[in-house]
Amino acid sequence: MKKRIAVLPGDGIGKEVVKGAIEVLQAVGERFGHQFQFSYGKIGGSAIDTAGTPLPDETLELCKDSDAVMLGAVGGPKWDQQPPHLRPEKGLLKIRKELNLYANLRPTQYYSSLSDTSPLKNEVIEGVDMLMVRELTGGLYFGKPSERTQQNGKDAVVDTLFYQKEEMRRVIKLAFELAGSRRGKVTSVDKANVLESSRMWREVADEIAKQYPEVALEHMLVDNAAMQMIKNPKQFDVVVTENMFGDILSDEASVLTGSLGMLPSASISENGPYLYEPIHGSAPDIQGKNAANPIAMILSAAMMLRLSFGMEEEAEAVENAVNQVLEAGYRTRDIVSFGKKVVTTSEMIEEVKATL
Amino acid sequence: MKKRIAVLPGDGIGKEVVKGAIEVLQAVGERFGHQFQFSYGKIGGSAIDTAGTPLPDETLELCKDSDAVMLGAVGGPKWDQQPPHLRPEKGLLKIRKELNLYANLRPTQYYSSLSDTSPLKNEVIEGVDMLMVRELTGGLYFGKPSERTQQNGKDAVVDTLFYQKEEMRRVIKLAFELAGSRRGKVTSVDKANVLESSRMWREVADEIAKQYPEVALEHMLVDNAAMQMIKNPKQFDVVVTENMFGDILSDEASVLTGSLGMLPSASISENGPYLYEPIHGSAPDIQGKNAANPIAMILSAAMMLRLSFGMEEEAEAVENAVNQVLEAGYRTRDIVSFGKKVVTTSEMIEEVKATL
Ligand SMILES: CC(C)[C@H](C(=O)O)[C@@H](O)C(=O)O
Ligand SMILES: CC(C)[C@H](C(=O)O)[C@@H](O)C(=O)O
Repeated sequence: MKKRIAVLPGDGIGKEVVKGAIEVLQAVGERFGHQFQFSYGKIGGSAIDTAGTPLPDETLELCKDSDAVMLGAVGGPKWDQQPPHLRPEKGLLKIRKELNLYANLRPTQYYSSLSDTSPLKNEVIEGVDMLMVRELTGGLYFGKPSERTQQNGKDAVVDTLFYQKEEMRRVIKLAFELAGSRRGKVTSVDKANVLESSRMWREVADEIAKQYPEVALEHMLVDNAAMQMIKNPKQFDVVVTENMFGDILSDEASVLTGSLGMLPSASISENGPYLYEPIHGSAPDIQGKNAANPIAMILSAAMMLRLSFGMEEEAEAVENAVNQVLEAGYRTRDIVSFGKKVVTTSEMIEEVKATL
Repeated sequence: MKKRIAVLPGDGIGKEVVKGAIEVLQAVGERFGHQFQFSYGKIGGSAIDTAGTPLPDETLELCKDSDAVMLGAVGGPKWDQQPPHLRPEKGLLKIRKELNLYANLRPTQYYSSLSDTSPLKNEVIEGVDMLMVRELTGGLYFGKPSERTQQNGKDAVVDTLFYQKEEMRRVIKLAFELAGSRRGKVTSVDKANVLESSRMWREVADEIAKQYPEVALEHMLVDNAAMQMIKNPKQFDVVVTENMFGDILSDEASVLTGSLGMLPSASISENGPYLYEPIHGSAPDIQGKNAANPIAMILSAAMMLRLSFGMEEEAEAVENAVNQVLEAGYRTRDIVSFGKKVVTTSEMIEEVKATL
């Protein structure tokens, strides 16, 4: 097969980890006889510096013209003092909206080889295998008004949590679809004892559950979910929630297994292209030091093979290669523990390629 | 001294744990020569059942007439299907608003005697001593509109995150005051890369920081805070944030040390009375079984002695008694671990009183 991939390295360690995914994909191409064509675009701080905007039109055009998008990471202290519309993150929010990426999927998985690096006790996380499904284009992130205002002559401010019912439906439906091919459980997280939007969310979840009798639905309040995630993460299979709750809970989930530098994500739209990015940020402190962990980006590429290209065997080959390299004791600095071999970013990439 | 205390047992295990606090306070009164006068009021589900509303006017009057309020817990499956304005939680939200309880304080503390019950590794939580300060009467909890609506003829819903600048100021100021008598660090949590309200919050925090040169201010994004809380909770001294973020993060913080059933809270207003309640809920599953842990409520009473009545010595006496009982190996079921003595609610209360 021939596939066109838009590559947006972004800022910080973005460039370094994207390189890893590309090299691994090239190796996959050779082994399985596919042709991957990579075209580069700018986003985030590097786009602000060169084009004066965090998401140039050419980048957007490039993405729309591609079969899938790979994104490194955006942001850095250099742009922290910019006005809101000239921040790197705006590029990320805009590309989500423009490509209609309504759902962000983040698997969190236990790696026995990494349990030393987790802050949690091994018996708590052993066997954790959870998929967070976060609504990505609605809620507080995009609701209007979002502005300074006055109340009785006093300074005030307002943000707006807005959802169309249909936006809830499509992401919750997706969660049920995904649960069907996993352990068959959906935990829908909301704050129905306070928010009207959460009460609608709960109704929609109940409605959709009727269409999936083989999937069990459980409702959980967001504050309780923040507790349960730590106390007993094994109880979760698929977790689905709105944008802001998802932002918080998926980051919480990502540190449980001690493998933040290894966790991939996929953002899904109705008609493609999908976008793949690691969960970690741009880590400006280690930029250029050949110290970043490329695995999250490499596993994001594996998700792309599976979800965008239907290449299940190829995806598994990449995932297996990563596993074997970890089992063999190779570690970048972020996941190192006693007795393991510390390697650089490029050495880790080489190991994965060689194992493939 | 003579003090009038409004007692609102609420639902579920509320009654059982409130009893513990009252008996301990009576013992304190005898030992230190104070007179505590207790008057009972209804709130939550039990108020719905008897008065048709989750917060009857008499309860509110009683509270306003008292020097402090002790609340057990509200809620239970019995009232889960009620319309929103007839839910037990509405009573809680209304009393916060009516008594102007603008800040909720939740200390989270490491107990070496409980480290077995924590999901986190001992080296991660050893020495944790954090105080969450949550804004309690603004934000998404009270903003209007909060209602169903339409957009282009389609079903939609809106909630509103609204703050007056002044509401941010008073709670952030309180956090700085509190940090001054602790380790001198405030972590202000927001989502300034997305929300306009968070950008105002950050400005206000920076402004107030100038008045407290001896306190260090750090800004942290809420998603990162959800991670840091697990990865390295020791870094936190005072954490201050808006209502919804505070709801999520303080519950997350409360399970770190394995002592959820032991954690107290205080809700503060400008002119009193303050309200004291345990962090845990009404736990309908163990209601009436004499199995609830009364310590969170007892330690809430200790906070009351200190913050409402200025009785520092008395507060410490209660806290020391609790510590000694734990050191001696007594445990209710929720915090039991290998080799400890399981006791009932009433036995635990007796032990604390006897030790006092
Ligand atoms: C950078 C930021 C705007 C973004 C978000 O909040 O969605 C990030 O935290 C994420 O989760 O991808
Ligand atoms: C019961 C609920 C409305 C309440 C809240 O969200 O504030 C509770 O979770 C709390 O934290 O006290």
